Amino acid sequence: MLVGAFQGPYTIISGMEMSEKFVINDADIVAARKVIEGVLIRTPITFSNSLSRLSGSTVFLKLENFQITGSFKARGSLNRLMQLTPEQRKLGVVAASAGNHAQGVAYHAARLGIESKVVMPNGTPFIKLAKTKAYGAEVIVYGNNVDESKVHALELAAAHGYTMIQPFDDPYIIAGQGTIAYEMLEDQPDLDVILVPIGGGGVCAGIAIAAKALKPTLKIYGVESAKYPSMSQAIRGEPNEVGGNTLAEGIAIKHPGQMTLPIIKALVEDIIIVEEEEIAQAIFILHENVKVVAEGAGAVPVAALLKEKERFAGLKVGLVICGGNIDPRLTSNVLLQGLIKQHKLAHIRVCLKESPAEMSEVITVISNHGSTITDAKYDHYQDLPPLKHLFVDFEIEVLDRTHLAEIMKDISDLGISVQTI
Amino acid sequence: MLVGAFQGPYTIISGMEMSEKFVINDADIVAARKVIEGVLIRTPITFSNSLSRLSGSTVFLKLENFQITGSFKARGSLNRLMQLTPEQRKLGVVAASAGNHAQGVAYHAARLGIESKVVMPNGTPFIKLAKTKAYGAEVIVYGNNVDESKVHALELAAAHGYTMIQPFDDPYIIAGQGTIAYEMLEDQPDLDVILVPIGGGGVCAGIAIAAKALKPTLKIYGVESAKYPSMSQAIRGEPNEVGGNTLAEGIAIKHPGQMTLPIIKALVEDIIIVEEEEIAQAIFILHENVKVVAEGAGAVPVAALLKEKERFAGLKVGLVICGGNIDPRLTSNVLLQGLIKQHKLAHIRVCLKESPAEMSEVITVISNHGSTITDAKYDHYQDLPPLKHLFVDFEIEVLDRTHLAEIMKDISDLGISVQTI
Repeated sequence: MLVGAFQGPYTIISGMEMSEKFVINDADIVAARKVIEGVLIRTPITFSNSLSRLSGSTVFLKLENFQITGSFKARGSLNRLMQLTPEQRKLGVVAASAGNHAQGVAYHAARLGIESKVVMPNGTPFIKLAKTKAYGAEVIVYGNNVDESKVHALELAAAHGYTMIQPFDDPYIIAGQGTIAYEMLEDQPDLDVILVPIGGGGVCAGIAIAAKALKPTLKIYGVESAKYPSMSQAIRGEPNEVGGNTLAEGIAIKHPGQMTLPIIKALVEDIIIVEEEEIAQAIFILHENVKVVAEGAGAVPVAALLKEKERFAGLKVGLVICGGNIDPRLTSNVLLQGLIKQHKLAHIRVCLKESPAEMSEVITVISNHGSTITDAKYDHYQDLPPLKHLFVDFEIEVLDRTHLAEIMKDISDLGISVQTI
Repeated sequence: MLVGAFQGPYTIISGMEMSEKFVINDADIVAARKVIEGVLIRTPITFSNSLSRLSGSTVFLKLENFQITGSFKARGSLNRLMQLTPEQRKLGVVAASAGNHAQGVAYHAARLGIESKVVMPNGTPFIKLAKTKAYGAEVIVYGNNVDESKVHALELAAAHGYTMIQPFDDPYIIAGQGTIAYEMLEDQPDLDVILVPIGGGGVCAGIAIAAKALKPTLKIYGVESAKYPSMSQAIRGEPNEVGGNTLAEGIAIKHPGQMTLPIIKALVEDIIIVEEEEIAQAIFILHENVKVVAEGAGAVPVAALLKEKERFAGLKVGLVICGGNIDPRLTSNVLLQGLIKQHKLAHIRVCLKESPAEMSEVITVISNHGSTITDAKYDHYQDLPPLKHLFVDFEIEVLDRTHLAEIMKDISDLGISVQTI
């Protein structure tokens, strides 16, 4: 699904026009660069041979998962914290976040000697709670989602005089994230297109302003997950209908930014919507072919590129891999499911007589085909095998579907019933 | 365990001295750079904040896992293939390899229109067979280890006139791998130390020659796995005692190179030996903290740095992450085992009466502690619970050991027996 054709008239836009239209212009991003220089990592932009082969484009990855705290959020939060008055610094800051923004605020606040409270919703993976604590924030678990956490954070701010550090609707945050585009275009000035994830829209808006100022012909595409297309709905004036569990929780934002929306509406070519299945595949490909660990939100530009190959064929495409904070347990599941989807890991069930002889024959067949058995389970009851028989379920590694079919045929030729499960 | 004090007299060594002593000198590496330029990726060298914090050094990673075919092997094999005469090109090439060298040869041979045969041992993971085939080689599975594959490859070479592409004992291979050091020192001239994996010794020898020529004060450390310390044994004149299953199969080489040995003996400061456990931890840290997918051999420099922190404290250290070709199933296991070792994933067994009431109470306790249940199994028979009772084994996510102890205490306070398993 494509949003299509909402690009504004500002494909070429001057700093002055920007100042009139938007909360920031390119000069604010140049200022943000000075603030973050030497503190944050100038992340690499690297050519990907595998993604170029898979997509038919020339693909460069801006690896913001290598940024301090594991995502681009460290840019905006540093720029924002550096604007605090001495009085505000003394009182401390508060933020609400389920992940990356929390870590960015916690890390920089601690480094600057500012006390920080971070409100995180129930169900936040422990690894994210632990990291946010380790970076130096006081973590308060409150609410069933980030919206509820935010209400509590605002209450704390009001009660104690903390400054609330917003995740995207703040000019300094947007300007901080926009510094990514300067680095990308300095390193790869020939880029034709940049694909960037959209949650609240902070990084997309910042990149759009910087990139359009530097290179007006460059096209920016946003990417949203199909479960949270809140920015595209808002731009089209459609009712806000979002929700559900997503691999890309980093961009699962119910209400897009009020400051970011007009920027994206004016400067972004289109928003590409990607499904969960495509996000999982993108995480897998980044892992297996590109050797990069990306979280769901960080992988969506890859999903969008592979979904819309024709649109970008032959172009020099920059993908913003915006973060790498994925739970190792989730990575593990994505990898195993990826192998199953690619028919490299297969599950078969054989129905054996209750004697070891047939079991031995089946294992010999599998072994002769060079396959590895990675799991085996007996099932006597659950699926009711014929009496005096039992089901054995094997997980085996295979080369591809043909290889699996050959193994199954050889088992079947022994007179043993076999099926995939 | 450290090899210690075998460094030769050549800490400062001229190109002329090198030519007299070794099969190549720095000029050969400069020539190799011209050969690979524009064909291969100039891989990024990136600062790692997490590894710097963990080690007390300033850590830069040379990401050769981003190289075409997923490892540095593409450098040497390209340089070697480009030396073939038109006649040799027409006859084709053969190589023996369990992984990375195979892919490097297959990829470049196909690109150059040269027919390639690659002999791989039985038991090579299917994903490596499949990739080598996909790059365009004819894959022949032969032998129970690479040594046996190599014998067959040499027979094929003799019978058909193929040129055998050696994995490390070849001047052009060593020179190709050495190009890594030029890129590292151009990008980070301040490096004090480079840590590089040693299998046959090709990449270590090449890097040592280039780095010592460019910056004689720079120190090179090799890293071997404890199961295959063949190079350090050879340097010390000890009997060759290596073998066993290792996570770092890319450097599981029984006999070190005859050409690489004198180079490493003369130019390398020391060889650090790392254990399997340390390699697994390094893969985990690269994944979880650095956001990089490394294979075992690619992760050993990280293992060595963390093992020998004091030795490198305060220095600027370059780690050669030499490859990323790891089976996703293995990655998955390393990640889950890493979580268990870090006490973030725990296994407990409760002994319940045969009624759902106690089960419900246990789940309520786990839930109240904010923990997630990721697996649960009933065990009626295997471990013989008291009659009319059953064991239930839970896998749960916890923050740390203290968190687990709190959960177990609350279950125990219900009068339910609970233990870790």
